[in-house]
Amino acid sequence: MEKGPPLELVDAHLSEYSYIGGHRPTQADRAVLNAVCVPCDRSNTFPNLRRWAAHMESFTRSEMQAFPPHTESCKMDNQLSDLVNKELKVDVAAPNKSPENDKAGNHSKRTENDKDGNHSKGSQNEKGGSQSKGKGKSGKFVLKTPKGTRDYGPMEMAYRREVFNVIYSVFHMHGAVQIETPVFELKDVLTGKYGEDSKLIYDLEDQGGEILSLRYDLTVPFARYVAMNKIDNIKRYHVARVYRRDSPAMTRGRYREFYQCDFDIAGQFDAMIPDAECVQLVHQVLSKLGLGEFTIKINHRKILDGVFGSCGVPSEKFRPICSAVDKLDKSPWEEVRKEMVDEKGLDEEVADKIGNYVKLSGREELLETLANDELLKSSPSAQAGFADLKLLFQYCKSLGCAEHLVFDMGLARGLDYYTGVIYEAVLTAGQNFGEEGPVGSVAGGGRYDGLVGMFDPKKKTVPCVGLSFGIERLFTIYEQKMRAESNKVRATQTEVFVVTACKGMVHERLKLLGLLHEAGIKAEGSYKNNPKILNQLQYAEDNKIPLVALIGESEVEAGVVKIRDTVTREETTIKREELVETVRQKLGGL
Amino acid sequence: MEKGPPLELVDAHLSEYSYIGGHRPTQADRAVLNAVCVPCDRSNTFPNLRRWAAHMESFTRSEMQAFPPHTESCKMDNQLSDLVNKELKVDVAAPNKSPENDKAGNHSKRTENDKDGNHSKGSQNEKGGSQSKGKGKSGKFVLKTPKGTRDYGPMEMAYRREVFNVIYSVFHMHGAVQIETPVFELKDVLTGKYGEDSKLIYDLEDQGGEILSLRYDLTVPFARYVAMNKIDNIKRYHVARVYRRDSPAMTRGRYREFYQCDFDIAGQFDAMIPDAECVQLVHQVLSKLGLGEFTIKINHRKILDGVFGSCGVPSEKFRPICSAVDKLDKSPWEEVRKEMVDEKGLDEEVADKIGNYVKLSGREELLETLANDELLKSSPSAQAGFADLKLLFQYCKSLGCAEHLVFDMGLARGLDYYTGVIYEAVLTAGQNFGEEGPVGSVAGGGRYDGLVGMFDPKKKTVPCVGLSFGIERLFTIYEQKMRAESNKVRATQTEVFVVTACKGMVHERLKLLGLLHEAGIKAEGSYKNNPKILNQLQYAEDNKIPLVALIGESEVEAGVVKIRDTVTREETTIKREELVETVRQKLGGL
Repeated sequence: MEKGPPLELVDAHLSEYSYIGGHRPTQADRAVLNAVCVPCDRSNTFPNLRRWAAHMESFTRSEMQAFPPHTESCKMDNQLSDLVNKELKVDVAAPNKSPENDKAGNHSKRTENDKDGNHSKGSQNEKGGSQSKGKGKSGKFVLKTPKGTRDYGPMEMAYRREVFNVIYSVFHMHGAVQIETPVFELKDVLTGKYGEDSKLIYDLEDQGGEILSLRYDLTVPFARYVAMNKIDNIKRYHVARVYRRDSPAMTRGRYREFYQCDFDIAGQFDAMIPDAECVQLVHQVLSKLGLGEFTIKINHRKILDGVFGSCGVPSEKFRPICSAVDKLDKSPWEEVRKEMVDEKGLDEEVADKIGNYVKLSGREELLETLANDELLKSSPSAQAGFADLKLLFQYCKSLGCAEHLVFDMGLARGLDYYTGVIYEAVLTAGQNFGEEGPVGSVAGGGRYDGLVGMFDPKKKTVPCVGLSFGIERLFTIYEQKMRAESNKVRATQTEVFVVTACKGMVHERLKLLGLLHEAGIKAEGSYKNNPKILNQLQYAEDNKIPLVALIGESEVEAGVVKIRDTVTREETTIKREELVETVRQKLGGL
Repeated sequence: MEKGPPLELVDAHLSEYSYIGGHRPTQADRAVLNAVCVPCDRSNTFPNLRRWAAHMESFTRSEMQAFPPHTESCKMDNQLSDLVNKELKVDVAAPNKSPENDKAGNHSKRTENDKDGNHSKGSQNEKGGSQSKGKGKSGKFVLKTPKGTRDYGPMEMAYRREVFNVIYSVFHMHGAVQIETPVFELKDVLTGKYGEDSKLIYDLEDQGGEILSLRYDLTVPFARYVAMNKIDNIKRYHVARVYRRDSPAMTRGRYREFYQCDFDIAGQFDAMIPDAECVQLVHQVLSKLGLGEFTIKINHRKILDGVFGSCGVPSEKFRPICSAVDKLDKSPWEEVRKEMVDEKGLDEEVADKIGNYVKLSGREELLETLANDELLKSSPSAQAGFADLKLLFQYCKSLGCAEHLVFDMGLARGLDYYTGVIYEAVLTAGQNFGEEGPVGSVAGGGRYDGLVGMFDPKKKTVPCVGLSFGIERLFTIYEQKMRAESNKVRATQTEVFVVTACKGMVHERLKLLGLLHEAGIKAEGSYKNNPKILNQLQYAEDNKIPLVALIGESEVEAGVVKIRDTVTREETTIKREELVETVRQKLGGL
């Protein structure tokens, strides 16, 4: 798109007005929401923009559609006004217009260009004029990725490879096997597994075949795989993208297509040994990534159920109350209590009783204290949970991963299918490489003993425990860390750039490249017949290629090659047959 | 599903009858086609089944739907008859029944179980009785992956990792960067790029948002990425799955979801230097994978156009005639000629003239001969193509990758967008590890200088050349090769299995695991409190874990560990503090 107004400008406008159009929401808010990108870092650079964007998220799609039309009723900067008018015009003109009006939007983040100037990172959207066949006359072709998705450029992919390599190495350390399932499943496989989140599932069009949906997570396909293949036990990992038609939530950096990175152990085993391995694995990955201090919170669904039962929650309300408790990490107790009482119809005293428990967190001692709590002493469910967690603490001590464990009675986890231990790892505040505040959960999981049985014809179940890394968050934090430490990751791994010093030497360049490749050395050269020598040397410097192999006519005649260190610019002349060995030595010494 | 009839039985039936139901096609053919899996290897084990399956593929979906109903008019084995009846019954009962009736089907391959007994490879489908909410009363839940897709089990993934590692290492050797794009694109991005194959595109349901489609290949998203980010030059690779609603084509091992592995160079460069790098890269990957002899066929769209023009093909028929020529690798000239004359309305003499050229193949000398051909001498297009290919041959010689090059006038490549050099790598016959006949194309590509311009508002184009590996085929052949060489790849990489010799030692086992993991050693132990020692040792042997670290009460007391070599069963007792060092030495010596 032609440049929209800078965020400063929108922020300034919103410091004066509650909404884009003045003092009430209008279609102008939708237009701007579609066109600007609210940065997802937690810095406080654009407080008004943030406040407004967060408020906008509280409207449903249909509510936003029902906003009154935009009228120029308040003072507005020209750039902003232009943007609104342009967006609204497209809104009207777009054929096959969808209620969300995504086509006209530009939701993707814009990030700085890469150093090498080859490309822009992320999806820097441009409204192209390219006309696609079959569009209406007014239908401008918008060149963008679908809403909530983005491209990943070379630098991002380089950081990702590093994070993945750490995680894969830990998975392999635990003897996990890898599996892969299709990106879509029969819709029936997903039906009834995600509760009210099912509305976020992407369905494929019925093109005369099966009714299919894109996978929503990797856990349900895993359970389907275990049941379908009648597997008794397996320890597997699966890294793949999943799909959720979530509200844009650009402020929170959430996407509709994102990676999940799952590790699960299925099988009938003795209590808490696989569960402890999961905790150990989270501990190892976070330690190896070196992202600073972290805490692994643990709790147990049976303890929560015991608390709910003992406090007088009717059993049919266990899950709804549980998902209210789940919000404690984002909202204060007062709000959670309000949800319990007002929305979920709990008695006030019952809610208060629950409040006494779910606010507690501590170490092993708290387990002991609560196990002897007057009310919980008589709850078999709670006592079973306490026994499990005590054992888990002991096993984690033996494994050497107990120091980060915190027993947190407020941890509830959103998903319905958990049946036992639950855990969640958070990076603790102050470690977030330039961002303010804690970054929140980076891994989570727990025991789900009933899911496989939902797929088995005889309801035969296979107990499971597993975890999922919030890998997109880890990517971001890792990248921030590497940048903060000026620990530059390169997009390529090229070791030698072959430079020719004069004209007519393209064949000599290719021969040298063939020779280096033959020896397994990563080498590149120019694609021009007669490139300028300075441009070639500059390319090597810009791309941080450590060595240059330089030949001119005299070098070819004498059967020698000049090796140049890109950083020190030191040059040595060696015999051609010593090239590979010399390069290896020099690379080894770097 | 309950076991269907063995393939032998169906084959035997079809040796007597043309169709399942006798001498005319009926719904029974559809039923059996849905239920059996025709092996995709090229051995001639079930000739009748193959003949029938190939014939079935010649019917369109609607033609098959119009087959008359099945009547028991011919002698049929009970098992086969049961299958037909069962399939047809489900056909009637299934709610939301689709014309293809996939739900009742079972298309996936069944392969042997893995050695470890943990799981079955591939998608061994089972009809589960699991009832999903919202299904009709008669609606049995079918536990399967969607038609044309499959799961990949641990062993397959282990082979894949090895193939990918070879390919990635070559990509990095050439200094390629990696990018990733979303699995779906705005439908408009794909529209008008694939000609009549567009009908194979998977569309997402319009759920109130943008109109989206799953990507069909990686080339069009790459062109969209280059145009959208206004990139002048980039050398990138992209490995990801793509989606095509193709006819099942089980006989050819084709799937609807499969990997592509693309390498492309975009940018304005001097002639043939990037093109030669692409040929070199194919050469390097196939050499490193060690799959035996291969040939890289090359041709040039300008040569083909020159031939067509000189022979008298009207220019609007260049592309249709080109796609007829493309079939020469599967069909004899007579059939291709027939298509040209009967379907595409070419004069017989024109077709014969073309035949004189497209049957030719040879080395560099043929280029010289044809460049001086009476008819082609006056075609500027053909002469430009010859000049390019001569240069390409020379560059490939300098790069050391010319020995496998063959100039093949019959190579045409299917896609419309190629504009220059085209190439295709084939493994030559007799190298296919148990299969008969040549395995066909394993890589292909070419120059496409116009595609990026289709996305640019000002039609500014960026010349591109690239290639795609037929990675699914490479996986299969690599796996066959490794099995043929008894070169067993393990699904896991575990190095040490920690064994406890007596009861009550779970904590000691976990401590030893923690210690080994801390040192970066891949180690596992039993998930049981008190596992039997023989079972533990057996597990290590079955899973080819090279070392066992064994402790009993006496070892713990004495502060020692027994190290056992799983193959030789040799045991040595060492001090606990020497464990890590000893394990490293022993692993290094294996």
